[in-house]
Amino acid sequence: LKVFSLNSNRKLAEDIANHIGTTLGECTVSTFSDGEVQINIEESVRGCDVYVVQSTCSPVNKHIMELLIMIDALKRASARSINIVMPYYGYARQDRKARAREPIAAKLVANLYETAGANRVITLDLHAPQIQGFFNIPIDHLQGVPILSDYFIKKDVEDPIIVSPDHGGVTRARKMAERLKAPIGIIDKRRPRPNVAEVMNIVGNIEGKTAILIDDIIDTAGTITLAANALIENGAKAVYACCTHPVLSGPAIERIRDSKIEELIVTNTIPLSEDKQIENIKQLSVAPLIGEAI
Amino acid sequence: LKVFSLNSNRKLAEDIANHIGTTLGECTVSTFSDGEVQINIEESVRGCDVYVVQSTCSPVNKHIMELLIMIDALKRASARSINIVMPYYGYARQDRKARAREPIAAKLVANLYETAGANRVITLDLHAPQIQGFFNIPIDHLQGVPILSDYFIKKDVEDPIIVSPDHGGVTRARKMAERLKAPIGIIDKRRPRPNVAEVMNIVGNIEGKTAILIDDIIDTAGTITLAANALIENGAKAVYACCTHPVLSGPAIERIRDSKIEELIVTNTIPLSEDKQIENIKQLSVAPLIGEAI
Ligand SMILES: Nc1ncnc2c1ncn2[C@@H]1O[C@H](COP(=O)(O)O)[C@@H](O)[C@H]1O
Ligand SMILES: Nc1ncnc2c1ncn2[C@@H]1O[C@H](COP(=O)(O)O)[C@@H](O)[C@H]1O
Repeated sequence: LKVFSLNSNRKLAEDIANHIGTTLGECTVSTFSDGEVQINIEESVRGCDVYVVQSTCSPVNKHIMELLIMIDALKRASARSINIVMPYYGYARQDRKARAREPIAAKLVANLYETAGANRVITLDLHAPQIQGFFNIPIDHLQGVPILSDYFIKKDVEDPIIVSPDHGGVTRARKMAERLKAPIGIIDKRRPRPNVAEVMNIVGNIEGKTAILIDDIIDTAGTITLAANALIENGAKAVYACCTHPVLSGPAIERIRDSKIEELIVTNTIPLSEDKQIENIKQLSVAPLIGEAI
Repeated sequence: LKVFSLNSNRKLAEDIANHIGTTLGECTVSTFSDGEVQINIEESVRGCDVYVVQSTCSPVNKHIMELLIMIDALKRASARSINIVMPYYGYARQDRKARAREPIAAKLVANLYETAGANRVITLDLHAPQIQGFFNIPIDHLQGVPILSDYFIKKDVEDPIIVSPDHGGVTRARKMAERLKAPIGIIDKRRPRPNVAEVMNIVGNIEGKTAILIDDIIDTAGTITLAANALIENGAKAVYACCTHPVLSGPAIERIRDSKIEELIVTNTIPLSEDKQIENIKQLSVAPLIGEAI
């Protein structure tokens, strides 16, 4: 068994290797002068079960190509099995044709990983669990809810209510609510008429409670910060937010900083660049969870 | 028949469409806030033979993903056939295992395009013609030599000799030499001992002649500028250089500017960004050539 890291999330890869009592395999992942990915595997992998850790987070296309080229190199080097550890699955939100002539990029990339030669995938909190069915190879689908829940259980927040920022996330909120023995709430966004701003209608009694918003991905943080403000305006005592995948692109950090969110709890499926390491964002490790799955 | 352009080479795509008497199909190719490629095809392609123009030049990984996602969208929109027009084929130089555990990325990307759903490929001057065999779908392999040759025939250079900068390019040099009715020369690079600088040994009589260096790709321009200087030092009257694919990364422009090269003739398989449009680089169009092939 050998674990290799590509460039997206080396720290997490090291933690995973540590957790299973090994060190990372030697390989150099760089670029040529023209930007093409160059990979050199520096040790034999013949007959080995190889785990490659790569989140396909930003720069997503480069990280995907690194992964595909690495799989190709491992296959040609006679690895016995090639296992992708993809804590964050890029392009997961393009998972269906919502309009005519849209691509389904989440399915496309699944096909690409298989074509390159992957034998198994380990991932966390896919944006839609249906993406598991896009693969013909085994896929382990791990969940961040227990890790996030444990944080709030330890913190012992007073009178919690777990709130889903949209209808799609209710199952996730309910799972967390069970662990915290708390009720759930839902934000019901409605646009009264076309071209009129959305109204945040809160389903559930949040009066005097500590609201904990939970989502799978926080990207530009528009939804989550608006939801937090609506919760406070409607009588919540305090608002926390949490998610598995901190994409945090564009205006996200500014919005979180300016919002009513007390603290944002995320995992390390995506590393936080230095400018994103602000005081009220806390990052929890999924390394033990992934280590167990390997 | 419909022609679409992605983001790598829109000007060339327009010229190709013009040449065959049509206009580009409507489609928006942009990115989401987190850098994921977003494609919207704005007109029906049902039952159409579709040509997608995309050079996989820098940023190569993004251009590859644009192409793959576009192919996926076209396939799902019931295009009758999906034809890739790829004037420049990225990753062509990773075409073999030169050392243990190297990937063969040129083959990998061929598999990816087929997996996405491409039915045919039109390309120019592959770094190795063997790459044609990496595909199971038809591939048209066009050549830049006639276009480059015509330039020098019109220019009527005095006493030309066509020089290949290495042994791999001799066939190409010979093809050009036939068209110009000129002799050929070869630069024979030798490293006398390990860790001693290479010596440029010139095979062929260049004394008093106008040397025309020809290559498929000029990337960092190291080889070509050293070769040009060696030619002048060994008695050539003047040196021109030409290639099909002007990758021109890193120090290329500076090297060319500081070199003995009179003029560098390239084609538009890769567009030249503004900082690369210097006086002694001339760009010829491959649009008529590709137009004929469609
Ligand atoms: N990378 C992305 N960033 C923002 N929106 C996206 C991205 N990828 C897909 N989408 C859009 O997000 C929507 C899917 O989100 P959801 O409705 O929450 O499943 C679709 O309308 C997609 O077009
Ligand atoms: N994008 C690239 N930039 C520079 N060198 C490359 C690139 N891709 C592959 N190579 C190397 O170029 C060599 C192949 O060039 P050649 O010997 O001319 O076919 C191999 O040693 C490759 O490792």
